[in-house]
Amino acid sequence: MNAIDLNSDVGESYGAYTIGNDEKIMPYISSANIACGFHAGDAHVMRETVARALEHSVAIGAHPGLPDIGGFGRRNIDISPQEGYELVVYQIGALWAIAKAQGGKLHHVKPHGALYNMAAADQALAEAIANAVYDVDPNLVFYGLAGSALIAAGKKVGLKTASEVFADRTYQADGSLTSRRAPNALITDAKEASEQVLRMIQEGKVRTQQGTDVKIDAQTVCIHGDGAHAVAFAEQLKGELERHGITVKAGNS
Amino acid sequence: MNAIDLNSDVGESYGAYTIGNDEKIMPYISSANIACGFHAGDAHVMRETVARALEHSVAIGAHPGLPDIGGFGRRNIDISPQEGYELVVYQIGALWAIAKAQGGKLHHVKPHGALYNMAAADQALAEAIANAVYDVDPNLVFYGLAGSALIAAGKKVGLKTASEVFADRTYQADGSLTSRRAPNALITDAKEASEQVLRMIQEGKVRTQQGTDVKIDAQTVCIHGDGAHAVAFAEQLKGELERHGITVKAGNS
Amino acid sequence: MNAIDLNSDVGESYGAYTIGNDEKIMPYISSANIACGFHAGDAHVMRETVARALEHSVAIGAHPGLPDIGGFGRRNIDISPQEGYELVVYQIGALWAIAKAQGGKLHHVKPHGALYNMAAADQALAEAIANAVYDVDPNLVFYGLAGSALIAAGKKVGLKTASEVFADRTYQADGSLTSRRAPNALITDAKEASEQVLRMIQEGKVRTQQGTDVKIDAQTVCIHGDGAHAVAFAEQLKGELERHGITVKAGNS
Amino acid sequence: MNAIDLNSDVGESYGAYTIGNDEKIMPYISSANIACGFHAGDAHVMRETVARALEHSVAIGAHPGLPDIGGFGRRNIDISPQEGYELVVYQIGALWAIAKAQGGKLHHVKPHGALYNMAAADQALAEAIANAVYDVDPNLVFYGLAGSALIAAGKKVGLKTASEVFADRTYQADGSLTSRRAPNALITDAKEASEQVLRMIQEGKVRTQQGTDVKIDAQTVCIHGDGAHAVAFAEQLKGELERHGITVKAGNS
Repeated sequence: MNAIDLNSDVGESYGAYTIGNDEKIMPYISSANIACGFHAGDAHVMRETVARALEHSVAIGAHPGLPDIGGFGRRNIDISPQEGYELVVYQIGALWAIAKAQGGKLHHVKPHGALYNMAAADQALAEAIANAVYDVDPNLVFYGLAGSALIAAGKKVGLKTASEVFADRTYQADGSLTSRRAPNALITDAKEASEQVLRMIQEGKVRTQQGTDVKIDAQTVCIHGDGAHAVAFAEQLKGELERHGITVKAGNS
Repeated sequence: MNAIDLNSDVGESYGAYTIGNDEKIMPYISSANIACGFHAGDAHVMRETVARALEHSVAIGAHPGLPDIGGFGRRNIDISPQEGYELVVYQIGALWAIAKAQGGKLHHVKPHGALYNMAAADQALAEAIANAVYDVDPNLVFYGLAGSALIAAGKKVGLKTASEVFADRTYQADGSLTSRRAPNALITDAKEASEQVLRMIQEGKVRTQQGTDVKIDAQTVCIHGDGAHAVAFAEQLKGELERHGITVKAGNS
Repeated sequence: MNAIDLNSDVGESYGAYTIGNDEKIMPYISSANIACGFHAGDAHVMRETVARALEHSVAIGAHPGLPDIGGFGRRNIDISPQEGYELVVYQIGALWAIAKAQGGKLHHVKPHGALYNMAAADQALAEAIANAVYDVDPNLVFYGLAGSALIAAGKKVGLKTASEVFADRTYQADGSLTSRRAPNALITDAKEASEQVLRMIQEGKVRTQQGTDVKIDAQTVCIHGDGAHAVAFAEQLKGELERHGITVKAGNS
Repeated sequence: MNAIDLNSDVGESYGAYTIGNDEKIMPYISSANIACGFHAGDAHVMRETVARALEHSVAIGAHPGLPDIGGFGRRNIDISPQEGYELVVYQIGALWAIAKAQGGKLHHVKPHGALYNMAAADQALAEAIANAVYDVDPNLVFYGLAGSALIAAGKKVGLKTASEVFADRTYQADGSLTSRRAPNALITDAKEASEQVLRMIQEGKVRTQQGTDVKIDAQTVCIHGDGAHAVAFAEQLKGELERHGITVKAGNS
């Protein structure tokens, strides 16, 4: 593979509250997942974030979440697939208009937080979300956890999909992510994280916590925008990829 | 004039809470102003309301409001024109996607409640809102109080406009609505209300509380959907208009 | 037993939205569970509902719920016990002040909807909630599903408890409620519902869906305030209880 | 005067969002105005902030605001005095319970942001708020802008009041604050700010933008907790006051 997408969750500030380093991470990513006002973000933040993405030629994606500003969309809420469908349609539309008003267009959709995690393991919810994306615009790329119900649902519905992998998370023998509650869930060494990404791209494999290798489909890599070393790591990872002849760009568009 | 638009605010239920008689009013109106989740409505209610409008061939309009579910969008909030622009773009987009997912499209935008009233008297806010509508889709019809800053802003920005009049509100010598706090603000007699509408359409005039006539531009008539007699009045008014050879249909499309 | 408490969930209106028949149900109940603004209710509705309870000499209880107006507190949200503790303390305090400002005082606390159901089956959450109640006021009576983790937690923490039973729900052989998703979950015949209540009070038993009897502790009976026949049933049940020499009054105070 | 109160707005973080330097400002203030969940803060943040105040022996105050997390309570909302009464009672109660659960008690109430500014100039709203405080607990101290309707209302209602002055704001000849929209509204020089405070305390006067002196009643000084130099200024001001023999402590308790 000669190209890979680096994505990051941005636009998560809210009113007087600021989160993340959106301005600083933008130069190193190829696609931006922009919060749509349900778990983070508001109409003003969305507008500013779209402007920033356009300025950096970063692909604009909707990052719909559960209706839970107070919990940042990280708490599971027991919604029905129909509720999932509806809240995803709503949020994509909101960002679509904000992009259109600035001459921009949407490239992809990546569910956020608990919605992402719930749907990754719940086929009915995953299909409802994929249908929501398709019904708004069948040309949108559907981002989801590699090997999960999200990707299966996107393919079934007829969407282009992008399998997402993580630079700083460890994997289990069955290809799943190590739970954040488990020890060794996170890779804190930047070099190790870069090497994991490179191998996922070049060999389609990841070394698991059990010491075995497992196949993994890597089309987009999630880069965290907050945290003390996030920007430095993004810069380093992009450089490392380019030194290996891998172009950083949004795919499937 | 041989045609007039009858509009009504619908889709104002929220979660477990129901307001209005949307199903019953739909047969008598030609355009629906659908709440977009800020002052009322939610993604589910919006979806159901769009379906209902499509079923009755009623033109679908966004009804953006201030972010105030608790106050139903009726309390003035001191927002800047920029905030007004942003929240209108956001809300139009949300409804656009919900309509598109059902094969429908937006016809118009009418600001709600305090946002409508504030902008009717505030040129900067009115222009910000009109620009928001234009930037999302310049073909949308902009509904606003006849003779107000909203209509002036819509024309200035280059939008098609629809001047709104009220069947059950009385008017002042300067063409403004009698304040709801004043006595005689409301016309409770259905016959009197019908006659006021007919005269506004046929003669372009309304008799004011001062006993004088004032010119008024009537392109769309607001019909209230709630209240004990709302549906009966809507039915009667539509019948009365048709008996006078006036077709009820959404204009400018 | 010569006395029983009849409780009802009230104060669930919100802003311009009305739910329930609070005025009509008040004469037939002995304790009111008042929504505290997280799943329903607002400061104005709470104030009016407290006034109504004081007028009818009905015991005032806090009815804290999950932070989810849009879902009416009926959707499970995956909160930690600590979050449960905090949101219960907050909500009790809000109602306490509203009662105190009118010369009233709090009698009990009953968790609402998904919070009630989650805690009924989750000992850690139940204890967190019970501790919240105790820490605000150890004299408050803790209402919970008869035989559930809520009652166990209340007793462990040192609170007075009231075991709640339902007039219009059927029971399983293990003493649990029949799931609402199952057929026969609800008793729609008023006479049958009254008889179930009478037997639970007089014999401490309920006939289950499996045809067997199971012991049940009945100290407070939940009466629904909404629905077409709610008020009529409440009136009938109160009459039936009194005819059998059972006084309707809030207990443990 | 040998003592003065230094107050600061704290507990304004919300969910995943952090604002302010609460931990660092606490050692230099004598009273904390804690957000109550309407404009900022949530049950968890309130609990942590109360714990921090107790640890530093800082007087605990409720800082009720308008229901506007998205606008941080800084946008005027056209509420009625009755709505003002109700939302203040609610918020005081919430903080009361959170304090009580930790063995703490409330000392004062200071309205926040737009609610403070609106009430400072609106006698009916100011009296409604003062009545709300009184009805919850007549022993609470009522903080308000020196010389404003808030202080007048507090006195009229029978509350102990604390007239608030600002270290870093300039004043007009009529004793009002210079509008933030005007040039020279803020004092950015720390020494100048300290001197203004000292003179207000020692002489009861402030030099106005017009070059004249005006009398001012200074019982509590507002210190901002956010901003690059806020903590350093707080430390310096406290030191300066103590060097002049003025004790920093919450009054009227």
